[in-house]
Formats: sequence, structure tokens, C-alpha cells
Amino acid sequence: MQLNKYTVGNYTPGAPYWQQLLWYFIGSPLVQSYWLPISSLKVLLLRAFGAKIGQGVRLKPGVRVKFPWRLIVGDYVWIGEDAWIDNLSLVTIEDHVCLSQGVYLCTGNHDWNHPDFQLITAPIHIQEGSWIAAKAIIGPGVTVGRAAVLTLGGVTGTSLEPMTIYAGNPAQAIKQRKL
Amino acid sequence: MQLNKYTVGNYTPGAPYWQQLLWYFIGSPLVQSYWLPISSLKVLLLRAFGAKIGQGVRLKPGVRVKFPWRLIVGDYVWIGEDAWIDNLSLVTIEDHVCLSQGVYLCTGNHDWNHPDFQLITAPIHIQEGSWIAAKAIIGPGVTVGRAAVLTLGGVTGTSLEPMTIYAGNPAQAIKQRKL
Amino acid sequence: MQLNKYTVGNYTPGAPYWQQLLWYFIGSPLVQSYWLPISSLKVLLLRAFGAKIGQGVRLKPGVRVKFPWRLIVGDYVWIGEDAWIDNLSLVTIEDHVCLSQGVYLCTGNHDWNHPDFQLITAPIHIQEGSWIAAKAIIGPGVTVGRAAVLTLGGVTGTSLEPMTIYAGNPAQAIKQRKL
Repeated sequence: MQLNKYTVGNYTPGAPYWQQLLWYFIGSPLVQSYWLPISSLKVLLLRAFGAKIGQGVRLKPGVRVKFPWRLIVGDYVWIGEDAWIDNLSLVTIEDHVCLSQGVYLCTGNHDWNHPDFQLITAPIHIQEGSWIAAKAIIGPGVTVGRAAVLTLGGVTGTSLEPMTIYAGNPAQAIKQRKL
Repeated sequence: MQLNKYTVGNYTPGAPYWQQLLWYFIGSPLVQSYWLPISSLKVLLLRAFGAKIGQGVRLKPGVRVKFPWRLIVGDYVWIGEDAWIDNLSLVTIEDHVCLSQGVYLCTGNHDWNHPDFQLITAPIHIQEGSWIAAKAIIGPGVTVGRAAVLTLGGVTGTSLEPMTIYAGNPAQAIKQRKL
Repeated sequence: MQLNKYTVGNYTPGAPYWQQLLWYFIGSPLVQSYWLPISSLKVLLLRAFGAKIGQGVRLKPGVRVKFPWRLIVGDYVWIGEDAWIDNLSLVTIEDHVCLSQGVYLCTGNHDWNHPDFQLITAPIHIQEGSWIAAKAIIGPGVTVGRAAVLTLGGVTGTSLEPMTIYAGNPAQAIKQRKL
């Protein structure tokens, strides 16, 4: 591949440049801040930049969001310390989901068979009642089924079935969840 | 699960609220600081907040400790850059242990079969002479046996046998150590 | 092992102490900075400290380099957000390589069978056109063959064949690349 010929295809960031700059230099540092650990203010800030966020959402310090205008979060969701939502594409987090500390959600990919290394993005959808445990990693295009669990440090590039516990890298189903 | 019904069971943080705040806003940023790379001062600070730490301990910059009053460290221990000791529960690190850069020790869990997602915590015990290599991750309740090794990026949620080298996610025993 | 008897063998950091200090306190924070996201300035700074860097190189915010005087980067290379080049030993990155966000390159090891836990370092060589995807980890002594890919969160301590896609921890070859 030749990175000087890189193309993003028809990708667009989805917000005017001034909004991206304002988010990068002001909004994101405030949401990430440790000195201002007030979840409700951070939710307001994310909403002001276009995120749709429900009620009862708790954001811990260090949360990094690439593009708030591509983030939908339901009710009673927790987003843990240093979680990184790298949402070039839409990330949807339904009600009662827990993203634990250090989780990384990756929506960007590249066409590795394309000589221009073309950008490919794909949304992530995390369904109701699921738990992404600490330091776990989710790749582009993944749907995490209802009430699924990805355990500590698990890595998945493929979708997870509902009510199932996954562990490892690549993550494998290890047992069923009972609620 | 329903996160608005979340319960911590009979969990308590183990220190008065003012001490938690002082640690969060003053102590922890100083211990994590890069501009003050003086290990001995950081050890004193951790001790002032209740950690039991032996002699000859070296702390690199970026070390994050959740609750110093739940940390016991022996003699001649190294704690590497950006190591994160997330000790809701007691973390015990015996003599001559090396935690390398970016290691994550996780003591918190949730009962995923409980509709309230109840908090479960469990101590971590790292025995003498063991090495947790860079970016490795250790889960709640794990005992790392004497002189065991968890290699680069290894992830374990189960205890490790003494004198044994482990690698992968989930970590598997790959060979014996000879000292 | 006994860490109070630790030895670095014949290892040397490769630059005078004043240069190490200047890099640690001034150079590295500037290169890592988010408030100064100007790749070309950061390239100049790395070069001023001894790195050899080609043209068309893009550095994202948060990039951490241990010793710039042990870094060789070709043309049209991308180094992603929060990538960490922990180059106690030489790291060589050839033309058209993409290191994505959060990648960790580790050149340090220890002789775990040696009672003094002696330091061992080994170079990393990433050949032309290869892609180390987000949060992947590469260990000491690894050569990444021409146009190889290590996918999201992959971990390898062994060299990767050219034109091959690897995934998992430990990383396994999963398919061939076609360009």
C-alpha cells in the first residue's frame, strides 16, 4: 500500500470544521477531565455537541469521545474511567449498558487489499443490558446482543450473541448468562 | 439487568469521604505526575494515605492507585509507567515483584446473573519474585504464585501457578521458569 | 529473583543525561500534547533529538517515544493517537507503515531465568506497507514482514510473515493479504 495515495472514499466527519475544532480543543478536554468529575455536566456538554443521551447516565473521568454527534446513549448507562469511544461512525448504546474502565470502541478500518488503504467505517451497536468489561475492545461493525458480556480484556471484531458470556482474544463464547 | 437498581451489596470504600476526595484531587495526581518523577516522594505520599510499602520500591510516572489504604507492597518492588492498580479490594504485592508498564490490576466484578448487577470485589495477591510484563491484565481474586511470569499483554482471570510462564488471552502456561 | 541485585548488563541509553532530561521534561510532553496537534512541528522536534524521519509522516496527538535517538521512520508513515514507542532499543519503521491508535511497541525484556532479572533489549523492525491496527502490541526482537497486518488488539512476541494478516493473543496468521 502507499499511504501518500490514501483516500477516505466518501467518508465525511458529519459536522462543520469549527464544531470539530471546538470539540477537540474545548469540549473533549472537559469531558475527559479528572478535575471536574461531574457526570451530569459532561452529559450536557456531549448533548450540546449533538449526542443523544438518555437519563441516569453516569460518565466517569477520562472518557474520550471522537465525535459526539455520532453517539446515541440510552437510559441508565455507565461509561467507565478512560473508556474511549472512537466513533468515526455511529455508536449506539442502549439502556442499562455498562462500559467499564478502559474499554475501547473502534469504528474505523481500512481496506487492506486496496492499494490506497481506503478508509472503511462501520457502526457499533451495543444492545440493552450488556456489559463490556474493563479494557475490552470492540471492532467496527459489531453488534453486541442483548445482555451479552465481554469479559476483562476481551477483544472482538465480530458480533456477540444475546445472553452469552465471551472471553479471550479473539473472544469466544464461554457460557450462557442467566438473569 | 437494570442499572437504576444497582446495588453494591455490603461494599464500603474503607476510608472517610474527605480522605477519598483528598486522594482523588491531590494525592493521586501527584503520584501519577510525570513532572515529578521522584519515586521516594510518591512512596511517602502513598504511605500517608494508608498504603503499607517496604524499602527499595521504585514507582515510575503515571502510576494510578484507586485506594492507597488497600495496598500492601513489599521490599524491592517495581511499579512501571502507567500501571493501574484499581484496588477496590486489597492488592498485596510481595517482595521483588516487577509490575511493568501499563499493567492493569482489576479487583472489581459484577454478578452478571443478578438483576441488580451487584458489585463483587475480590483481592489480588502477587507473590514474591513474580513478573507481570507490560500491558498485562489481572482480574479479581487472582493469586499470582511465587516467581510466576505473565508475559506481554497477557490477560488472566484465574490464578497462576508458581515458577510458571503464562502468555496469551486467556493466559496459558507455556513453560517452567528456572532460577 | 532479587530486584535489589538487578543489572542492566552492558545496556546504555545512548544519549547523554542532559539530553535524556531535556527530552523527558520538554520534548516528549510537546510531542505527546493534544493542544498542539501539528504533526510537522512534532517531526522537527523528534529530529532535533536524533530521530531519523522521512517525508510525509503524520503524527497524531498523544504519541509517546522513549528515546528519539533510537527511532528511524521512513516516508509516508502514520503514527496514531496514543501510540507508544517504548524504544530502549532501535525501532525502525519503513515507508508507508500505519501504526494505529494505542499501539504499543515494547523493546525491553528481562532474563527471567537470571537471578538478577537482567535487562535484555532487542530492536523492532516494521517493514514497508504493513499495518499495526489499534491497540495492538509488539514485543522485543520482532520483525513485521512487508505489508503484514496485525489486527485490532493483536499481541505478538514473534515475527510476522510478509503479506499475512494476524489476529489474536498470541497472534495467529488468519489469511493472506492481496494488494
